[in-house]
Amino acid sequence: MSPAAQKNAPAKNSTTQNAPARSARAPRSAPKSTQRTARAPRNAPRSVPAPGAPAPLAPGGLRVMPLGGLGEIGRNMTVFEHADKLLVVDCGVLFPEDHQPGVDVILPDFTPIRDRLDDIVAIVLTHGHEDHIGGVPYLLKERADIPLIGSELTLAFITAKLKEHRITPSTVHVEAGDRRTAGPFDLEFVAVNHSIPDGLAVAIRTSAGMVLHTGDFKMDQFPLDGRITDLRAFARLGEEGVDLFLTDSTNAEVPGFTVSERDLTPAIDQVFATAPRRVIVSSFASHVHRIQQVLDAAHAHGRKVAFVGRSMVRNMGIARDLGYLTIPRGLVVDAKKLEQMPDEKVTLVCTGSQGEPLAALSRMANGEHQIEVGDGDTVLLASSLIPGNENAIYGVINKLTDRGVRVVHKGNAKVHVSGHASAGELVYCYNIVRPRNVMPVHGEAKHLRANADLAIRTGVPAEGTVVARDGDVIDLVDGRARLAGHVPAELVYVDGETIGRATEGVLAERRQLKDGGVVTVLAILDPETNALAEPPEYLTRGFVSDGRLLKGATAEITTALARTAPGTDDIGKLESVIAGAVARHLGRALRREPVVIAVVVDA
Amino acid sequence: MSPAAQKNAPAKNSTTQNAPARSARAPRSAPKSTQRTARAPRNAPRSVPAPGAPAPLAPGGLRVMPLGGLGEIGRNMTVFEHADKLLVVDCGVLFPEDHQPGVDVILPDFTPIRDRLDDIVAIVLTHGHEDHIGGVPYLLKERADIPLIGSELTLAFITAKLKEHRITPSTVHVEAGDRRTAGPFDLEFVAVNHSIPDGLAVAIRTSAGMVLHTGDFKMDQFPLDGRITDLRAFARLGEEGVDLFLTDSTNAEVPGFTVSERDLTPAIDQVFATAPRRVIVSSFASHVHRIQQVLDAAHAHGRKVAFVGRSMVRNMGIARDLGYLTIPRGLVVDAKKLEQMPDEKVTLVCTGSQGEPLAALSRMANGEHQIEVGDGDTVLLASSLIPGNENAIYGVINKLTDRGVRVVHKGNAKVHVSGHASAGELVYCYNIVRPRNVMPVHGEAKHLRANADLAIRTGVPAEGTVVARDGDVIDLVDGRARLAGHVPAELVYVDGETIGRATEGVLAERRQLKDGGVVTVLAILDPETNALAEPPEYLTRGFVSDGRLLKGATAEITTALARTAPGTDDIGKLESVIAGAVARHLGRALRREPVVIAVVVDA
Repeated sequence: MSPAAQKNAPAKNSTTQNAPARSARAPRSAPKSTQRTARAPRNAPRSVPAPGAPAPLAPGGLRVMPLGGLGEIGRNMTVFEHADKLLVVDCGVLFPEDHQPGVDVILPDFTPIRDRLDDIVAIVLTHGHEDHIGGVPYLLKERADIPLIGSELTLAFITAKLKEHRITPSTVHVEAGDRRTAGPFDLEFVAVNHSIPDGLAVAIRTSAGMVLHTGDFKMDQFPLDGRITDLRAFARLGEEGVDLFLTDSTNAEVPGFTVSERDLTPAIDQVFATAPRRVIVSSFASHVHRIQQVLDAAHAHGRKVAFVGRSMVRNMGIARDLGYLTIPRGLVVDAKKLEQMPDEKVTLVCTGSQGEPLAALSRMANGEHQIEVGDGDTVLLASSLIPGNENAIYGVINKLTDRGVRVVHKGNAKVHVSGHASAGELVYCYNIVRPRNVMPVHGEAKHLRANADLAIRTGVPAEGTVVARDGDVIDLVDGRARLAGHVPAELVYVDGETIGRATEGVLAERRQLKDGGVVTVLAILDPETNALAEPPEYLTRGFVSDGRLLKGATAEITTALARTAPGTDDIGKLESVIAGAVARHLGRALRREPVVIAVVVDA
Repeated sequence: MSPAAQKNAPAKNSTTQNAPARSARAPRSAPKSTQRTARAPRNAPRSVPAPGAPAPLAPGGLRVMPLGGLGEIGRNMTVFEHADKLLVVDCGVLFPEDHQPGVDVILPDFTPIRDRLDDIVAIVLTHGHEDHIGGVPYLLKERADIPLIGSELTLAFITAKLKEHRITPSTVHVEAGDRRTAGPFDLEFVAVNHSIPDGLAVAIRTSAGMVLHTGDFKMDQFPLDGRITDLRAFARLGEEGVDLFLTDSTNAEVPGFTVSERDLTPAIDQVFATAPRRVIVSSFASHVHRIQQVLDAAHAHGRKVAFVGRSMVRNMGIARDLGYLTIPRGLVVDAKKLEQMPDEKVTLVCTGSQGEPLAALSRMANGEHQIEVGDGDTVLLASSLIPGNENAIYGVINKLTDRGVRVVHKGNAKVHVSGHASAGELVYCYNIVRPRNVMPVHGEAKHLRANADLAIRTGVPAEGTVVARDGDVIDLVDGRARLAGHVPAELVYVDGETIGRATEGVLAERRQLKDGGVVTVLAILDPETNALAEPPEYLTRGFVSDGRLLKGATAEITTALARTAPGTDDIGKLESVIAGAVARHLGRALRREPVVIAVVVDA
């Protein structure tokens, strides 16, 4: 949503009538609604260009604008500008934290490119994870025919997602080793290994120099599909000269090397070897190789497998159809068919490994799923534990344990390995590529800083190591990467049916509601004196006190009205006075304020 | 609060007047307030005795009632009953999770002992952590003169805490090796090592047999104070015959052995050796040995130290005065004095290692503390990362990183070790004590289950391994521990000024408010027809939509009133009809419902 559109939101949100002057029967007067809007500017324009807006790009230069992923793990999006054209690499979503209640997902801020959508020559998608493709539907809603460039599986995943949004994209299928031009950008794609198949790094050649963007990657030397991160290509590009190297920072703080996916095989096999009854596996619906391992183990132990949950069924169907998942004949059956089989022959593969309340696993743990789990069943959480999800996941584990289920997870068995390069791998990359400039991407502040420190330790000059944040504008001119200014890069919240309308102010209100609840005060006032005509009524939700507190508030209202209200005709002001008096009174007693909404009606 | 007292709460909470019959000037009629209470039974009695209330204890038997800590990590409290007397071991608090918004702390449920407070012969406190002593003030508010039995440091910490509650306790100081009687209970105290000094296990002898309760412990073989967990005493008690062994489950899922506190020395020293400017250390205010390590390192590197934050200053004062903390002369100075010293001589020791927003460290990270941190400063988080706090802690680390601070934490250096025995240590204990019956304590379901499995692997009979939960009643009769029934053991929420009044219903309202905000509808109705006399007004907080949504709600209100409202005089019903229509309308469009509060006023 543009700032202009947002400006209109408050008026739309409030359907207050414009009543005539104040009377006994028309309890609202015009000034009040003005007051109220002034009091709660919930949908004020979110972002104006920072004072540090960049100067025009030097002729022949390359501009890099990270709009997401630099300062958080998610909503990855980088915009490259050259010769008046724009190239987008990735467009993902970020999942909200607890202090962002009610938010569904968070998008990159499209503001800096919204007036230049026609200049975009393509969106390159490095791989099919939500934090790299989840924002594409929202960008395509603004211009539907932007070509999407990606590998086969990546395009299949984004196409399936876009179908739900009723968008048919224009796609360009590329493979590792391919070279393509998109406007003034000369693109070369390089295989990288990650926790989803078919990942690509992209080298972007322009007359300003060469950029190499790793996407998300690690350097598993024995991946299940044999498709390793192509360090020979990295070396060749390094020989040619990489002017700016954008590298995945997620695990830059983790010392050493990420172990191989194959190292999980014994622990996964052990689960199947020892499970007396059903095995229920939960993992990400995109983790094709992890699921492959589960399928192989189930097959080896004579079990059948059913996929449970919409996204798991859909993605595994795509992966199988395209040949990324190898399913022995007869191994996978319909969940319904599995019900008739003996428990020791059953494997279920479902979503919910992050404790998502609506996913199959949580519903099984709560006894709300048609699949009833119990004594002797084994649940395998073959997945990571994303920070912030711990309590939800532990809650699911505890509930399953209470049902007699044995739960195997990364805390008690070697059943997960990260998809990102650890510090040791990153150092190899820096030494192989020997870039002139480095810009860490994909990480919070601490990850970006740690990654930059690794680059510097390998000999990248500190002045060429740019620790940027979303919205920073970096220009590559004469072989040097320099901060050129800033553009807006706010967090754009998708909230219910709205995009960008849930502002920080709205979230602050929700946090206040969460901690203290809401108190609605109905105050009947004498229109002559503006004094309480009768005791106010308090309607509360999510609020507790010992009762005397609210009675005490009435005295505060009386005092506040006597001090400030006589003579005014402004109901908005009266409501503000009442709400303020109640809020202060409660805040003093409770050490936190509930949200107080006052409604004034004339007696 | 007793159930009876709770029952009164709704009436107190609502100060609705009892107006006469409905009239234009008195917009509330009596039936309505009844209606409203029926609609939102927010403070209904929380707990009635379960159908499984236990039969009377067999003569000469010992009854064990865990009222907290079995099913969660926190609010540890176990009640022992013998010969009509009660002994309480620990009385702690539990800290709330995200799904318990607004709650300050959670207490054990005192309901099962509330009618028998005079039967309590003593409260044994195993150590001075909040999850073992934090509930004592609330229990002493119900009966102030219950003797507290504990070690010197434990009693000093609880006494300081009780002073804040204006309670002077009756205390009995014991040391490891001491034997005391408390009513019919013969108590023997055994030294255990933990992440706070002066921890005690307690052996409880009665004619029904001997119970050994470890409290929280680990088996560091080289603790800083040389006070190891006394396995010789465990062995001697085992020889005598332990009939019921209660053991700390916190780390039962962690394989191997918890390493020694001393193993952190090199990493902590390294921080001081390499820090170019100030060193700011954050840890728990009770972790005396960790702070001792920091003091020693600071001293070795010629720095001065100041304690920052009320609880840190208080606890370290107590620990020093009692000889648990050894401070070289002149090392610790006032924070103000430190301001005049060169940065490379400065060490600050503060709270906030869990990302608590009001603690010193968070305020430094936010630039809201008088101590301004920046480039060259080093922050050492010498502490655990309690599940659920990850995002808060990472937020603090990222903000500090953004200020140029180097942050050393357990994720990138060996600066923390757990205070609890890992699986290997627990197995040693079982083999040394060889108990007849085992009851895992201190843990969530998964920890209790893992601990029970360890006991069984060492040869404790499965039928003697009782995986109980809060509120289960276990009777030890004829040397066998058996589940005898259940007593209430609800989560009791301390919320602002109230205890036990914030019910699950209130928390559910807060969660709904958090996700969807609140919509207050002011509806002016024609008193003859009960139709809308004018368009309703919507006042929202924390709610977003595109505006059309609320306009659409007006049509729904009109329809709902026309269908159900004509002829009724019950304003509560009218409000319910209106709120329901709006909630359903918004819920359909948004996939979640905000809280809707309708206020009806006659035109």
